[in-house]
Amino acid sequence: MMNEGVHFDLGYSSALYLGFKLVSVNVSDIMAMGCVPKYLFLDLAFTSDADEELFDGIYDGIHEAIRLYGVSLLGGDLCSSRSDTVLAATVIGEGDRVVFRKGAMPGDRIYITSSTGDSGCGLQILKRLDDESRERVRRQKSRVEPDVCTGPDLKLQSDSGPVISLGWRPGFRLIKRHLIPVARDSRDMAAFANAMLDISDGLFIDLSRLCDESGTGAIIYSDQVPISPELAEASGLLGMDALKMAVSGGEDYEILFTSSNFPLEAYNASHDIKVSCIGEITASERAVIDKEGKRSPLTAAGYEHFGQ
Amino acid sequence: MMNEGVHFDLGYSSALYLGFKLVSVNVSDIMAMGCVPKYLFLDLAFTSDADEELFDGIYDGIHEAIRLYGVSLLGGDLCSSRSDTVLAATVIGEGDRVVFRKGAMPGDRIYITSSTGDSGCGLQILKRLDDESRERVRRQKSRVEPDVCTGPDLKLQSDSGPVISLGWRPGFRLIKRHLIPVARDSRDMAAFANAMLDISDGLFIDLSRLCDESGTGAIIYSDQVPISPELAEASGLLGMDALKMAVSGGEDYEILFTSSNFPLEAYNASHDIKVSCIGEITASERAVIDKEGKRSPLTAAGYEHFGQ
Repeated sequence: MMNEGVHFDLGYSSALYLGFKLVSVNVSDIMAMGCVPKYLFLDLAFTSDADEELFDGIYDGIHEAIRLYGVSLLGGDLCSSRSDTVLAATVIGEGDRVVFRKGAMPGDRIYITSSTGDSGCGLQILKRLDDESRERVRRQKSRVEPDVCTGPDLKLQSDSGPVISLGWRPGFRLIKRHLIPVARDSRDMAAFANAMLDISDGLFIDLSRLCDESGTGAIIYSDQVPISPELAEASGLLGMDALKMAVSGGEDYEILFTSSNFPLEAYNASHDIKVSCIGEITASERAVIDKEGKRSPLTAAGYEHFGQ
Repeated sequence: MMNEGVHFDLGYSSALYLGFKLVSVNVSDIMAMGCVPKYLFLDLAFTSDADEELFDGIYDGIHEAIRLYGVSLLGGDLCSSRSDTVLAATVIGEGDRVVFRKGAMPGDRIYITSSTGDSGCGLQILKRLDDESRERVRRQKSRVEPDVCTGPDLKLQSDSGPVISLGWRPGFRLIKRHLIPVARDSRDMAAFANAMLDISDGLFIDLSRLCDESGTGAIIYSDQVPISPELAEASGLLGMDALKMAVSGGEDYEILFTSSNFPLEAYNASHDIKVSCIGEITASERAVIDKEGKRSPLTAAGYEHFGQ
C-alpha cells in the first residue's frame, strides 16, 4: 500500500516512477521467497482534482513494471478518494520451493545482491535538491532502463550551508534506486538458499529479523559490505558515512539470503546483478567485524551502536 | 476498495459492520461467478488519531466474515494514512465452471435471490435518522446473525416535516441489508446458470449490463419482483415507491442469473434464501410488463422511464 503524504510525495516522484514502484516492491516480496510473480491485482483511488498527467503516468509506470516482470493484471478497483491518492497492489506468485526467513543454519554464509544504501542516499539527495533540480528529477520521463547519463549537475543544500554540486549521472542513479527499485530475480539463488528476504527497512534490521526467526546469530565483515561508486561519491560530498547508509538506509529491495553451498563465482560469472558474501550465520553470537578485526555488537538498531 | 468519505461514513456505520462489509462485497464478486471464495488479502490504512474502538471493530467484523465465508487471510498490508481510513480487500476464488455475464440465451428465465431494494431503503432510513436513533444503530454490537429483534422505534425525519416512527425490527433489518450485506452462496445455482452477476448498482442497471454483454434483451414482470415485508412497511411510511426501490436501489448484492433449466421449486424447498423468477431473456426486446399487461421500456436508467 502506498499512500500520499505517508509513502510518497508527488513533489519528489514522478507519477511514472510511482506506478512502477507500486508493482516492483510487491513483486520483490514474491521474489524474496524464491518464487515467480504471476498475477497482479490493483486498487487505485484518486481525488476529484487528479489530472491526466498523474493518472497516465501511474498507468504507464504500472504497465512498464508488468512488462518487465511478466505478470498478468487480473483485476482490482479504480475509485474515488476524498483527500489523498491511494495505491495498493497484491501480487500472487508460484514456486516449487518457497524460501522463508526462518531456515538459516549456523555455518551458512550470508549473501546480498548488488549493493545497499543507494536508496537511502537517494532519498537524502532528494530532500536536499534545490527547486530547479527537484523539478528536473520529477519531470524525468525516462524509462527504468537505460539510465539517462547526461544532464547538468544536481544542486544540493548541505547541512553547513553552501550549495553542493553532484554529477547528474551518480545523483540520478541514486535517486532512481529510491524512486524505482527493481525487484531482483532470485530464481538462481533460491535453490541454494536456506533463508531469504528482501531488504526493506535496512540491512542490519532485516538481517536481525532473519536471525530472530531462524534462532541464530550472525557475523558481518564490514569491509565485505558492498558500497557502490555512486554511494561512495555522494556520501563523500554530503559528509555522510557510506557504510552506515549501506547497513541502515532502507528501501533497498536487495535480496539477502543464507546458504551453505551457493556457487558464488559461477553465479557472478553468468549474471549482471552480482552477489556478495558479507558474513556468516552463527549459533547465537551477533557481531560486526571491521577490517582491523575489531568486533562490535550487531543489533537491529544497526549502525548507531556499531563502531562508536 | 472502501474509502472514508466516499464509500462509508463512520457516523452511520459501526466499525464492526464496515469490516464485515469489506470482505462480504468482495466475496460476493466471486460467488456471483459461481465460484467459491478461498483466499483473502487485506490492505488497511488508518490515520494517526484512529482509536482502539475503530481498529478492533474493523478487525472483529473482518474475522466474522472470514468465519462465515470460510476464507483464509493470507496477507496484505497495515499502514498509516494521512487523512482518511482506507480499506481494500482482494479475494481469490476457485470454480470448476466460471459463470460470466455474457452467456444469457433468448428463452432463459431470469432469477434473483431473496429480494432487492432493502439496502437502498436502509440507506434512506439511515440518512433520515434523528441523532439518538443514529447513535443507537451505530453502537449496535450485534453480530450479523441473529437479528436484534427488540428495541425502541427508530425516529426518522420525513420530507414533509413530522417525525416518523419505524419499528426497530423492520427498520434495523433494512439498515443491516445496507451496512452488512451477506454474499449469497451461488453453488447450487451456478450449474444451471448461463449468465450471472451480483446486483451492486441496481436490478435494472445490472440486468441491462448482463443483456448488453450477452447481446440479448429481457422482459421483466413487475409483479414478480419480490418486495420484502420490511421494504413494503418502511416505504409506505416514508412515502417511497417500493417497486422503484427494488429495481433501482443498488448495493443489494443479490444474485441475478439466467437459466433454461433451473429447478426452482426443488431449490426453494431445500434452501433458506429463496429464489424468484422475475422474467425472461429475449432476442432483443427490453420491456417491463405490469400486472395489467401494460408494457414499458426497460432501460439501464431503470425506473425513471418505467410506468410514468
